[in-house]
Amino acid sequence: MQAAVYYGPNKLEVNDVPEPHPGPGEVKIKVGFNGICGTDLHEYYAGPIFIPTEPHPLTGQQLPLVMGHEFSGTITEVGEGVTGHSPGDRVAVEPLYRCDNCHSCRAGNYNICAQIGFHGLMSDGGMAEYTVVPQRMLHKLPDNVSLELGALVEPMSVAYHAASLGDVHPGETAMVFGAGPIGIGLWFALTGMGLEDVYVVEPSSTRRAAIEVLGARTLDPKAVDVPGFIADTTGGRGADAAYDAAGVEPAVQTALACIGARSPMVSVAIYEKPLTTPLLNLVMNESRIQGSLCYTSADYEAVIGLMSRGRYDTTGWVSTIALEDVLDEGFEALHAGTKMKVLIDPSTQVLR
Amino acid sequence: MQAAVYYGPNKLEVNDVPEPHPGPGEVKIKVGFNGICGTDLHEYYAGPIFIPTEPHPLTGQQLPLVMGHEFSGTITEVGEGVTGHSPGDRVAVEPLYRCDNCHSCRAGNYNICAQIGFHGLMSDGGMAEYTVVPQRMLHKLPDNVSLELGALVEPMSVAYHAASLGDVHPGETAMVFGAGPIGIGLWFALTGMGLEDVYVVEPSSTRRAAIEVLGARTLDPKAVDVPGFIADTTGGRGADAAYDAAGVEPAVQTALACIGARSPMVSVAIYEKPLTTPLLNLVMNESRIQGSLCYTSADYEAVIGLMSRGRYDTTGWVSTIALEDVLDEGFEALHAGTKMKVLIDPSTQVLR
Repeated sequence: MQAAVYYGPNKLEVNDVPEPHPGPGEVKIKVGFNGICGTDLHEYYAGPIFIPTEPHPLTGQQLPLVMGHEFSGTITEVGEGVTGHSPGDRVAVEPLYRCDNCHSCRAGNYNICAQIGFHGLMSDGGMAEYTVVPQRMLHKLPDNVSLELGALVEPMSVAYHAASLGDVHPGETAMVFGAGPIGIGLWFALTGMGLEDVYVVEPSSTRRAAIEVLGARTLDPKAVDVPGFIADTTGGRGADAAYDAAGVEPAVQTALACIGARSPMVSVAIYEKPLTTPLLNLVMNESRIQGSLCYTSADYEAVIGLMSRGRYDTTGWVSTIALEDVLDEGFEALHAGTKMKVLIDPSTQVLR
Repeated sequence: MQAAVYYGPNKLEVNDVPEPHPGPGEVKIKVGFNGICGTDLHEYYAGPIFIPTEPHPLTGQQLPLVMGHEFSGTITEVGEGVTGHSPGDRVAVEPLYRCDNCHSCRAGNYNICAQIGFHGLMSDGGMAEYTVVPQRMLHKLPDNVSLELGALVEPMSVAYHAASLGDVHPGETAMVFGAGPIGIGLWFALTGMGLEDVYVVEPSSTRRAAIEVLGARTLDPKAVDVPGFIADTTGGRGADAAYDAAGVEPAVQTALACIGARSPMVSVAIYEKPLTTPLLNLVMNESRIQGSLCYTSADYEAVIGLMSRGRYDTTGWVSTIALEDVLDEGFEALHAGTKMKVLIDPSTQVLR
């Protein structure tokens, strides 16, 4: 079968590799769509970061590896002992390997397992015609949720998990900094939770336009005094939660100037370096910065439920490409900023 | 009567001023002891910061003002309508003025009232023989709590409030960064809450020695790999809470490297400028930074209760001086670091 294999920085090749076969407790999936993640870009341009160069303690695998951890598909074969799943089932895959034994796993927070692994970073993943996963990673898709949406459950769950950590409720005011895929996911999650007053702060006019098409209200921080606007809008109370999906200093500093008393700024960004952070803002109104990482199965189920109720829309921000175009139309386009989210369809054959 | 009057930066004079008289709902207090706070030092050396230069909305007062917001005393006179308090009552004073109308006040968090005022910063305070306060500021002292301890209830409540926001429980591990008066108060609060594993991180050998006399275990961050030590001590779990009472970059960075999954670093410091902060630490284990400011009456009652059970000790870190020595033996000694906590006894007459 064809698969995108990662060998190291700047070396990702579409190769013919053997089809995997499911062992006990595993299922084989014909990949429907596989999204390219910002993490994949980091691995390609600056890695290996998460991709192991020696056998990973949970998967035993190391590079070269088939990339891809955001995927959906259809089960084609089940291994010994698999129950509740059959060939033909359409699924989204929650790609986390965890130790089940550390303090976080035992507390139910396996998203922050000390040994966490991803299917598609620490084992052969979804940028391929087929992949094999343990059955515990499976989430069935309702009939009315497409495989295209199914491949978006993973990044949308990252955002949903962060949205939940903000502890907001209908009638409250939330702010989202950054309108990339996670920012878009935060907007879907927060509006899906019933919030009406969600403001998306984004300096790029292209990204503002994209999220406005989905129905979002946006603020251009280059043109608007954002903390002043939020103070006016909330009668001086401030935002009930702010979400940083931008990961840059101006976003964090503005967010901390916007949140109200005892309110959180939730960080769901990979900060490349320590930021200059006005911690005094936190002290003066007893607010907080809360980190958020990944998701658990509850987030997957919540997102799939909202998708089934028609609350997610791919218009204008999701593109689909063939596997053999993964570099030019995938990684390079995302790196250049000409696309926002790219899904690979391994079944598409390009005639050249 | 004699009082320490603040006129502006570097101008604090012990003057003879009229004795105040209690209006309706107010009581007159013969001051027992009044502590000098770090905030007072900031006002003297770099102010006015909090002391108003035009009438404060809640008190109507502005400089010149009698300083002093950490005090205890004995009621000598009660105004019209005062109930439950009589001359002779020994009290600690909770010196907050609040609007009772803002979002935070209505939520019970009057410590972060949008208009907050302090008796002794926004009105004539306790560095005087007498002061007059609204009866709502009074907390009766049990017979076995001295007026000296009574003057420490205010800073100890700052620390107790912060300790509570860390949401720790007996059997857990906590860390305190900085062994000044608030760090000492955190140690008393946490051990008073039943924690046994409390580590105080302090680079100054003098301050380490002072808190060790009280029974604390200390770590010298210049000699010990603090995150490594805490990881070993907790079996890799990390601290259940860390408290920053130092307000400097190395403390914050080390604290964020020590806290475990879903655990807080509570900030109870006045950060003079934004710090370089490794926010990625928060993301990777879903930990948080939580700000803490002042206290409410519940903190006062908790501290007074612990004092009554003998859990606070002034040995080695509290000095007492006469009012007329407020500058030389008070502000200057604290500024030079030769004393840690200074209480003014306005009844002491110095013969020269």
